[in-house]
Amino acid sequence: MTKAAFYEGNQQFSFGAGSVVAPKAGEVQIRVAYGGICGTDLHIYHGNMDRRVTKPQVIGHEISGVISALGDGVEGFEIGDPVTVMPLDTDRCLERDAEYSHICEHLKFMGIDSPGGFQSFWTVPAYTLHRLPPTLPLKYGALIEPLAVACHDVRLGQVKADDMVVVLGGGPIGTLVAMVAQSIGSRVIVSEINPYRVEFIRSLGMDAVNPRETDLPAYVLDKTNGRGADVVFEVTGSAAGAEMMTKLPRIRGRIVIVGIANAPAPVDLFRFFWRELSLQGARVYEHQDFDHAIELAASGKLALDRIITQVRPIEELQVALQVLEAGGEVMKILIEVDPS
Amino acid sequence: MTKAAFYEGNQQFSFGAGSVVAPKAGEVQIRVAYGGICGTDLHIYHGNMDRRVTKPQVIGHEISGVISALGDGVEGFEIGDPVTVMPLDTDRCLERDAEYSHICEHLKFMGIDSPGGFQSFWTVPAYTLHRLPPTLPLKYGALIEPLAVACHDVRLGQVKADDMVVVLGGGPIGTLVAMVAQSIGSRVIVSEINPYRVEFIRSLGMDAVNPRETDLPAYVLDKTNGRGADVVFEVTGSAAGAEMMTKLPRIRGRIVIVGIANAPAPVDLFRFFWRELSLQGARVYEHQDFDHAIELAASGKLALDRIITQVRPIEELQVALQVLEAGGEVMKILIEVDPS
Repeated sequence: MTKAAFYEGNQQFSFGAGSVVAPKAGEVQIRVAYGGICGTDLHIYHGNMDRRVTKPQVIGHEISGVISALGDGVEGFEIGDPVTVMPLDTDRCLERDAEYSHICEHLKFMGIDSPGGFQSFWTVPAYTLHRLPPTLPLKYGALIEPLAVACHDVRLGQVKADDMVVVLGGGPIGTLVAMVAQSIGSRVIVSEINPYRVEFIRSLGMDAVNPRETDLPAYVLDKTNGRGADVVFEVTGSAAGAEMMTKLPRIRGRIVIVGIANAPAPVDLFRFFWRELSLQGARVYEHQDFDHAIELAASGKLALDRIITQVRPIEELQVALQVLEAGGEVMKILIEVDPS
Repeated sequence: MTKAAFYEGNQQFSFGAGSVVAPKAGEVQIRVAYGGICGTDLHIYHGNMDRRVTKPQVIGHEISGVISALGDGVEGFEIGDPVTVMPLDTDRCLERDAEYSHICEHLKFMGIDSPGGFQSFWTVPAYTLHRLPPTLPLKYGALIEPLAVACHDVRLGQVKADDMVVVLGGGPIGTLVAMVAQSIGSRVIVSEINPYRVEFIRSLGMDAVNPRETDLPAYVLDKTNGRGADVVFEVTGSAAGAEMMTKLPRIRGRIVIVGIANAPAPVDLFRFFWRELSLQGARVYEHQDFDHAIELAASGKLALDRIITQVRPIEELQVALQVLEAGGEVMKILIEVDPS
């Protein structure tokens, strides 16, 4: 029997049989195995994105699964292939946006602007697919999307081996950014105020500090012989993060804006001028970031097993969102749809 | 008879005989011809930089002149050579700062942290010198320093031919940024609230708008087929500029921070995220920017004659500062020291 979770608005989901949409030309139908819950899903749950999300709607965009049907003209994929989805529908992007279609103005984000993957069968454009190595557990396949975010952030931050990297915010994305930066040989300090997450990140072998207990700018200077950080990732989206981010970089250091700020916050532009700092906004990913994420996941170098702190059946999606909302001792929750 | 203007604090200058310092090894003495008045000089006059400026002190750092004496070991220069000065004393910069000595923490800015050029004879390290073409009038030689600022800004902004460039702030630096950007083939819109300056910039053949009269974001979209600007230069240092700067760039567009902000201002970091904008702080210049500025000045392509709206003898330095303070119909004022 097929299953699906439908966002109904007002912090409610309903559960029922999902639709099974036959793939049109250029499309592929996936039997969904796992779906990760993203911070964006929490925003949807809270009603903050009701202007974009039609109700009732299946959400979910961090998906792994197996191809169950192929539309006409799809080449390079076979039924049974394990895949993940880069959930960016770029059909409406203009020709001039070709280079940056991942952030074009007419982009539709699948699972927000159109149906997502918290359902048994999800039909998507074939160009959104990335094949997973057969040896990679499908659970980890559901982490490729957030890992690709981290790969994109680290790439746009131009992180190099031996760089000192500071990540402001140690939730799932911040932790993945730290792991990717570390995987290319940089040193990493994660700043996080949740004591569970501080300990969690330390248990992964990375440096983590609570900026409410430690003078972070002094700590970073101390760890860099007075020089400052090469790259700072602002993943909190908070005014505190916007204030902290300029205090940490070295002369000509870089800041990457990853967190989603909900209001303009005071920024020390003098410091940008004085130290010739640069700042780069980074949103979602491009196909090369998915390639990098899959390669990293397949390498076994990242402790992806540790990032997944809970796996719950689709019927518990609403409970899972409440757990995430409460915060505390949780990182990534996966929704199990049809892992068979 | 030698002359010098001494900053005495409390918005006062005294005038008298200047000292004639014999150049030590590696130093050169210049007979100063002209010196431009910079916004920084106005800040000094207002007492805002009294922590850095010892009193009484000769200020001034936009200088042209002729070599009048050579210290031991100076090669490549002769007495009588026309020169300008890149006023950055980098003697105390650490080895690790070699790449970015122009903004190193131990930099001394000549004319602020040490004596400047509003005097008959100025003795400086030979490494600060740039030779001027003999055909270039020394008046224009005094514009090389601010022009090098503009070259640095445009270089760090990665401006390319056919880019649409918006410059927020049409004072001398903003106007020079616009001129340099135009010289490499970009289209330019200058935003300026002083009606005299709006007309002045238009009279130079560039597009200028008053953002209090024109909806600047709509204007820029209209001029770019709805795409937005490639590069935006924030030269006002104001909260209004910090608010405006994120509304103008295209997806993946760039913002360069040139203006000196005197307090943190609200910045729309969400817009950086959403459109993957980047921002680059730009301070002073490097030697290659002086080379570029001299080449541009010598080419005759820039209307440098128009930028100089007044030339006054050194005894009128204080009057000139008052004229600049009053604003209105003025761009660059040159101080004439010994033009013979």
